[in-house]
Amino acid sequence: MHYADRLQAAIETKGAPVVVGIDPRPELIPDEFFDRAFDQFGKTPEAVRAAVKSFSLKLLEIIAPHVPAVKPQVAFFEALGSLGMEVYGAVCEYARELGLLVIADVKRNDIGSTAEAYAQGLFGLSEIRGINMRSLQVDAATVTAYLGSDGILPIRDRARENGAGLYVLARTSNPGSAEFQQLELSKGGTLVDEVSRKISEWGSDNIGQCGYSDVGAVVGATHPDAAKHLRELMPKTLFLVPGWGAQGGVKAAIKACFDESGKGAIVNSSRGVIHAYAKGPFAELGQERWKEAVEKAAIQLKEDINGIID
Amino acid sequence: MHYADRLQAAIETKGAPVVVGIDPRPELIPDEFFDRAFDQFGKTPEAVRAAVKSFSLKLLEIIAPHVPAVKPQVAFFEALGSLGMEVYGAVCEYARELGLLVIADVKRNDIGSTAEAYAQGLFGLSEIRGINMRSLQVDAATVTAYLGSDGILPIRDRARENGAGLYVLARTSNPGSAEFQQLELSKGGTLVDEVSRKISEWGSDNIGQCGYSDVGAVVGATHPDAAKHLRELMPKTLFLVPGWGAQGGVKAAIKACFDESGKGAIVNSSRGVIHAYAKGPFAELGQERWKEAVEKAAIQLKEDINGIID
Repeated sequence: MHYADRLQAAIETKGAPVVVGIDPRPELIPDEFFDRAFDQFGKTPEAVRAAVKSFSLKLLEIIAPHVPAVKPQVAFFEALGSLGMEVYGAVCEYARELGLLVIADVKRNDIGSTAEAYAQGLFGLSEIRGINMRSLQVDAATVTAYLGSDGILPIRDRARENGAGLYVLARTSNPGSAEFQQLELSKGGTLVDEVSRKISEWGSDNIGQCGYSDVGAVVGATHPDAAKHLRELMPKTLFLVPGWGAQGGVKAAIKACFDESGKGAIVNSSRGVIHAYAKGPFAELGQERWKEAVEKAAIQLKEDINGIID
Repeated sequence: MHYADRLQAAIETKGAPVVVGIDPRPELIPDEFFDRAFDQFGKTPEAVRAAVKSFSLKLLEIIAPHVPAVKPQVAFFEALGSLGMEVYGAVCEYARELGLLVIADVKRNDIGSTAEAYAQGLFGLSEIRGINMRSLQVDAATVTAYLGSDGILPIRDRARENGAGLYVLARTSNPGSAEFQQLELSKGGTLVDEVSRKISEWGSDNIGQCGYSDVGAVVGATHPDAAKHLRELMPKTLFLVPGWGAQGGVKAAIKACFDESGKGAIVNSSRGVIHAYAKGPFAELGQERWKEAVEKAAIQLKEDINGIID
């Protein structure tokens, strides 16, 4: 089934176009996970990985009834050492078992056979000398486009074979994003415009029944006019919108990422949900009632975003 | 010690500014490695990882006496499943034990605390709750710049603490590279020019005794004029030059990547060395004499590149 249709179905089932970023910050994980892991494995890297893993899996159980998708950020798992990817794999797999769509936030990019190797690692079915390598099998992944079509098409094709999708970095929400992304081109428009046109093109031959393609865009929601402009440039492109909560997303900009019927985008929140007991409106619940805080934050996220697009 | 000085010392010791890309393609690895691994582990993903690992480590032993640096391409290890990173870590670690500098070809990119997490994963010293996570500890890594300074500085700073360096994608050698990289800007020049100026700036406050900074650039050697132009824009930037061998690098373009005294760049060859027994001038040696083919190809690479810059 087409990625965009699967996402749309999940959004309808769970009742809101939101995604929770799984970016576990070890310093914010409740102590109980480390206490148990240190008891079992001593003060070792293995114990740290066990703590991050059990926290992440529990997190998935709490949010799975509420949200359609999660976006595990691979950098926080790579920081756990070369076995951290095993934890990442376990998180992605368990999320899918729980019925969540998994958007691997990996921002991978390369060309030719190297891009193909990344795609094999991400979209399952990596087969070597007749052996299934049991690589990741995620529903979508983030990628970057500086290398041009050569860096996107091999990954897109492999994703597509598997009913998966991509989100290509278009306009990010960080302060330095203007340095290159907003450069004015002599033929008119900006670099982001040009990237956006290509993103639209890369997905144009595979539009799902919901009207959206399997090649999405990452669009930060900090400027309403910019979001509106990009929505026009990419009418059939799903937007993955970071910037809600910690990154200071602007309501009008988030609204402009959606089409008139409230479709075509998903809004991400990471820390605001998964570490809700540490900071923000649910911080008073504290570590002891961390599960309650996370669940409340996930529900609040849905209400906030639905309130914006209604 | 400063990364550029360490690289320059290694180049002088080994006698050529070359780097061998470790991109093991399972279909080209000599059968003996798979035969042994299948005997030991059966027809399992574990066996495939064992074969790739033992081939890669043996490869490092063969080339270590000849070349200053290796560039392991993480995509080919990620394709081995979530335990593939453990093999990648072992390759990087053994290369350093053998006295090779390791340039992790990972093309990572993200912002803020996520960029910091990537850097922790790459440049060792990742410490969580007082525990050293024994993450990778490489000498340099490739990164991409679409996110602007916010995506580079956290990684640069962590690398720098450790005497390591970065290579930022500037001008790549693939056919589609022109799509974005060569776009003309209304203020003059191209996107690559603008990225190059930033790369130069990011490294300008840490120039080694050899005259080069710890923030390098990836510059494909396909057009002599382009290479000359970028050398002028980035006079104190080390160039990592793919494109020799399989990617069709042009001699005059490679020469233009170096300064007048033959410094400031390293030229990469991957398949042409590590799978020399499968294709190219040493293919007649075949799988049985694969070690000889690899060693000859490494020596040939040095002669070729020294012949160009002399």
